[in-house]
Amino acid sequence: MTRSADALRPHERAVTTPTGFDAGLWFIGRIRTPWHRRSDCPHRGDAETGPDCHIEVFGPWDAALAGVGAHENLQILYWMDHARRDLVLQNPKFGDSATGTFALRSPVRPNPVASSVVRLLAVDGPVLTVRGLDCLDGTPLIDIKAAFGAMT
Amino acid sequence: MTRSADALRPHERAVTTPTGFDAGLWFIGRIRTPWHRRSDCPHRGDAETGPDCHIEVFGPWDAALAGVGAHENLQILYWMDHARRDLVLQNPKFGDSATGTFALRSPVRPNPVASSVVRLLAVDGPVLTVRGLDCLDGTPLIDIKAAFGAMT
Repeated sequence: MTRSADALRPHERAVTTPTGFDAGLWFIGRIRTPWHRRSDCPHRGDAETGPDCHIEVFGPWDAALAGVGAHENLQILYWMDHARRDLVLQNPKFGDSATGTFALRSPVRPNPVASSVVRLLAVDGPVLTVRGLDCLDGTPLIDIKAAFGAMT
Repeated sequence: MTRSADALRPHERAVTTPTGFDAGLWFIGRIRTPWHRRSDCPHRGDAETGPDCHIEVFGPWDAALAGVGAHENLQILYWMDHARRDLVLQNPKFGDSATGTFALRSPVRPNPVASSVVRLLAVDGPVLTVRGLDCLDGTPLIDIKAAFGAMT
């Protein structure tokens, strides 16, 4: 599930990361999906045909859900807490060359904030039912935003 | 530019925030825009008609830009460092009622990570020229990702 420090693939490059952080995040909820191993997760979520997933919002933040039911689509930000953060060049498919992290959507990145636009199916108190996620069960939630236009 | 702790509008609600954080972010670059006051920023960026803006990526993370030039659109995550983080109900237009933070895209949110899909115009070493941003000059950069599909 994790990529340990010695798991560099050919052509990949790691850098020395800064000591200390510049800003802090609160985990404001938890995402429930059918996937318990990294290898089971889809490459990208599908807001039309993907399985139903649940987003549990913790108090006191659940009060901020007022009005979300009016939106067909929501943008979800979540924290890929199992991903290493020091790779600048990655070789996702074990190919002949590597690609810069910022040209990819891999969970491996300096700040592992993932973003998906999901279809909202139901709101039941602090729990949303949605389609379009791609992450492991138990993934920490960072943000929910109204989504306009189509998907990224 | 900021909304101080006593600046609640009618029907807005603030909560007591947690002590300590659950995860940390590194500022990996800086965004350069024409806007120096919050009131000057557009409500949303326009990837077609907006002004050219610049994204400066700090070392050692600039090495992760390899291959970004192949993408017409990029998703940019940035940190709204002037926004308060404790509002669960907001009244952006001073109306008769408030809306939940998660039904809005306001910079005021528990984790003030903003997300825009921009059009990439040029790559010059560690500096990208893009269209579609909406933030203050000097805003901290958190992430750059390949973008597929249309906008959020």
